[in-house]
Amino acid sequence: MRLSASDINDLEKRYRAALINSLSGFKPANLIGTANAQGQTNLAVISSVVHLGSNPPLFGMVQRPPVVPRHTYENILETGVYTVNHIHETIHEQAHQTSARFARDESEFDATGLTPSFVDGFAAPFVAESKIRFGMRLVRDVAIEENGTRFLIGKVEWIDIAEELLAEDGYLNIEKAGSLAITGLDGYHRSEMIGRLPYAKKDQPLQRLEDPMKGFK
Amino acid sequence: MRLSASDINDLEKRYRAALINSLSGFKPANLIGTANAQGQTNLAVISSVVHLGSNPPLFGMVQRPPVVPRHTYENILETGVYTVNHIHETIHEQAHQTSARFARDESEFDATGLTPSFVDGFAAPFVAESKIRFGMRLVRDVAIEENGTRFLIGKVEWIDIAEELLAEDGYLNIEKAGSLAITGLDGYHRSEMIGRLPYAKKDQPLQRLEDPMKGFK
Repeated sequence: MRLSASDINDLEKRYRAALINSLSGFKPANLIGTANAQGQTNLAVISSVVHLGSNPPLFGMVQRPPVVPRHTYENILETGVYTVNHIHETIHEQAHQTSARFARDESEFDATGLTPSFVDGFAAPFVAESKIRFGMRLVRDVAIEENGTRFLIGKVEWIDIAEELLAEDGYLNIEKAGSLAITGLDGYHRSEMIGRLPYAKKDQPLQRLEDPMKGFK
Repeated sequence: MRLSASDINDLEKRYRAALINSLSGFKPANLIGTANAQGQTNLAVISSVVHLGSNPPLFGMVQRPPVVPRHTYENILETGVYTVNHIHETIHEQAHQTSARFARDESEFDATGLTPSFVDGFAAPFVAESKIRFGMRLVRDVAIEENGTRFLIGKVEWIDIAEELLAEDGYLNIEKAGSLAITGLDGYHRSEMIGRLPYAKKDQPLQRLEDPMKGFK
């Protein structure tokens, strides 16, 4: 079936949100950890972290329009830092529950039972239960004028990972960590690896890598 | 294990690229279809399409620095349009092969055996083998000064999907379509749904949705 721009425009609001949120494919399931200047912690599910570059190590993420209080966004502006923490199957219900409407003085850590931990000198808490977490410093807050969202560009300040997840070529086996993917607004999925494919070369057949932990030479 | 900013900076270049590309979690596996003003088609794997908003329906995507010829980016600037096509397990080897270095006058469609199709009046080809594809019009080309990449903001012009994938609330069952997730630079994964979780409410336990095709009321 084909929908035109006007068909899409005419869709009921929540139906359209579900459809458009599903369109781009699987999304990374992460928790963003922040604190305000007074140390009040906050935790929020986000599915929009996107790789911008490896040297320097940069990621972007989308924040919804700050027309109502947005604790994560406000905290990042206050302290300049945030953490990204993978959501695994073992914690995904607690992670999802952070999206309920908590007050400014309630911590989603307390409300969901997830455990805040800190890296010395870094104001934002990370999630102790997550096996892959990293600290980010805000580099630039880009206004997306088209709809009022913000695109936050951040630089990786530290990485904290379980060593057994790391392949010999730097590839991180996030499937082994039990990390999840999100579809639409509310679908959670585990993964099953098909394989790693080598750097593609013209006129050369692909050779699949059977053991993802080995890495390509 | 913990890596500091200087540890990360000291990593061997390809090792760092593999690690940083793995960090953010699962990424959507898409093919970007474009054509230049003369109608020469191009197809490229991309894992950075990100949802910006549903009303208007906007997505961003990251393009690497245009310091060498970037056919996809050049074509989008020439025609103003592109398509996003889900990569399924059935076509993922062909899709990956599009990342080999083809010349400007070679089409990745011809080289990989994927089939270009067109929507009337829309210059960019879509992939006939893909079950979820949509047409985008470039709205804004944002320079990411920090590393020379471009963040392209586009608006959905049309959507073409297999009707049986659509749940009653607008959720699209991309797992049923066999769409894939990417990890790092080269890992391909199928998915297994855990469930859909309802809109979270404070002090209310979560109720999992067993049939994703039904949708929440």
